[in-house]
Amino acid sequence: MNEIFQEISEREPAWLDGGGPQADCVVSSRVRLARNLRGHRFSHHASGAELAEIRHLLASRVLDRPSFAGGWSLELERCTSLQRKFLLERHLASPDLVNEFQHRGLLLSADLGRVAMVNEEDHLRLQVFHSGFNPTLACQDALGLDAELEEVLDFAFSDDLGYLTTCPTNVGTGFRLSVLVHLPGLILSKEIERILNSLRQLQFTVRGLYGEGSAVRGALFQISNLGTLGRSEETLTSDFYRHVGKVIHYETLARERLLEEDRLGLEDTVHRSLAVLQEARLLTSLEAFDRLSHVRMGISLGLLPGPGVGVLNRALLEMQNAHLQVRAGRPLEGRERSAARAELLRRLLA
Amino acid sequence: MNEIFQEISEREPAWLDGGGPQADCVVSSRVRLARNLRGHRFSHHASGAELAEIRHLLASRVLDRPSFAGGWSLELERCTSLQRKFLLERHLASPDLVNEFQHRGLLLSADLGRVAMVNEEDHLRLQVFHSGFNPTLACQDALGLDAELEEVLDFAFSDDLGYLTTCPTNVGTGFRLSVLVHLPGLILSKEIERILNSLRQLQFTVRGLYGEGSAVRGALFQISNLGTLGRSEETLTSDFYRHVGKVIHYETLARERLLEEDRLGLEDTVHRSLAVLQEARLLTSLEAFDRLSHVRMGISLGLLPGPGVGVLNRALLEMQNAHLQVRAGRPLEGRERSAARAELLRRLLA
Repeated sequence: MNEIFQEISEREPAWLDGGGPQADCVVSSRVRLARNLRGHRFSHHASGAELAEIRHLLASRVLDRPSFAGGWSLELERCTSLQRKFLLERHLASPDLVNEFQHRGLLLSADLGRVAMVNEEDHLRLQVFHSGFNPTLACQDALGLDAELEEVLDFAFSDDLGYLTTCPTNVGTGFRLSVLVHLPGLILSKEIERILNSLRQLQFTVRGLYGEGSAVRGALFQISNLGTLGRSEETLTSDFYRHVGKVIHYETLARERLLEEDRLGLEDTVHRSLAVLQEARLLTSLEAFDRLSHVRMGISLGLLPGPGVGVLNRALLEMQNAHLQVRAGRPLEGRERSAARAELLRRLLA
Repeated sequence: MNEIFQEISEREPAWLDGGGPQADCVVSSRVRLARNLRGHRFSHHASGAELAEIRHLLASRVLDRPSFAGGWSLELERCTSLQRKFLLERHLASPDLVNEFQHRGLLLSADLGRVAMVNEEDHLRLQVFHSGFNPTLACQDALGLDAELEEVLDFAFSDDLGYLTTCPTNVGTGFRLSVLVHLPGLILSKEIERILNSLRQLQFTVRGLYGEGSAVRGALFQISNLGTLGRSEETLTSDFYRHVGKVIHYETLARERLLEEDRLGLEDTVHRSLAVLQEARLLTSLEAFDRLSHVRMGISLGLLPGPGVGVLNRALLEMQNAHLQVRAGRPLEGRERSAARAELLRRLLA
């Protein structure tokens, strides 16, 4: 198991490379599809034996498909708690999957761009990730993957309702689009609450970095659609594109306005933050999130020559607690983590 | 007058070069001699006409001596308030001289290492400056200068009491030794109060950067002897050397102990401070003093490769408010000063 995690931790997911559209404001776009197997009870009603059977079936069928060639299958109860936390930090697993890990599984494609959670709320939760703001590509990719899996799996489906899911909010398409957005401009201009509230009124949900109830760190937010019933994946995607596109537009305007109103103050903030990241010997996660956020904004505004957005995305991921410890191969105490984080960031941002 | 100040501001005093003994803890050593002219009332009893006469006499006689060849004579009331503040920041003039500037003068040697304040508390206050911890050299230099001036000036002297001065504490030799010391280790180790109190009990006075009542900035202190009556200059100097030498020794021990107890924390502090000084776009004087102090200590402990102590001494001097404005040739508002300070420090510490 340790070797697998070593391998995963060293593989850089393509969706983090900063090469996608509007990567200055959007880290990644993700589509999740909820699916259940016909003829099996939903996860929370199934016995341990049935869950084990489902996991075995899904692991063998899914990993056999071209999309998952060379990928990995993980059984969550065989991971250490540190490894489970690592999967959460990497956005490969949900908080639910890693907290209630008995009989649960995770299937990963070789490029870490496709992920299947097994026996979470639904038997199968497929996820695809893409770089930047790219809901359309993520939607196409997810539907293609779904079709590929339907060749070998029989999903529970009703002609009236569509795909059947444990929670009624997912019935129909089981489709959820999310983006991980970086909104420092709206925070600094104090517009963030107003914008997020209007998104919520439009049936979007907005959360911190690690999903529901988690705190906002580094001005990073997850925005997802809420309802799916009665609307096609294409309609959901184009609605998402339009509404979230507006938020990105407002973020860009806020950054430009900040630059106009106080260029010197902004330059001071971003140069200081890059300098500290490049030179500190001890960095808490909280400080690192803030400073990486400043630098990410500074680069998008042309105030800093580098590093690239891809390096920053990687830094934001890898400087987290479980990542540092998986990389070190052992648990690290608070101050050791701060030292390891500072060392990693010095190296990445040199 | 502006041209004179431009010239002075660009001339780097040799005593700031960091080349003297124990320059890691001591910026400079200074001797001051208080003298009055026989046949004239003390400054505070003399009329304006008499003060003008004294100033004229001293300026012509002193600037004529080899030690002051190529030097400058300033009449304080002809300086702007900014220029007077500049003289104070540069330690060329006392707060008293620049606050009550009518009929007062300042004579400067070409290398800015010898200074004569005219019509301050006494008619003449001679000062010599040397780099690092060098009381003996400063004492010899001051007495040599005194002898040179006595060839052309008739000082008030009593066979019983010695040199006569306005304030009884100076009667006798009129001799005061001071050092500008950097004591960040004793501050961090919280030993500073104890050490300074024992110095005070030994008849030393300890003050902030700009003399009596001024705040401590950048862990810089001025230590001076208090009483002079009945003791020769040589005795005063060797006492000073011994007692202040102990303080420097304690400072060195405190730094080494800090390094032993928390090397990483200290490395973090000094690297961050250098990075911020090299990259910030806005720096208040308070922050700059603190960060320069960290860097100065970091260099002395071998935690930073550079810059040299001389550069830091210069930075500590030149980043001050009046210096920035004299250099800019105009008054600067608070934020403009912060920007000019950051720009200067970026350049000096690049």
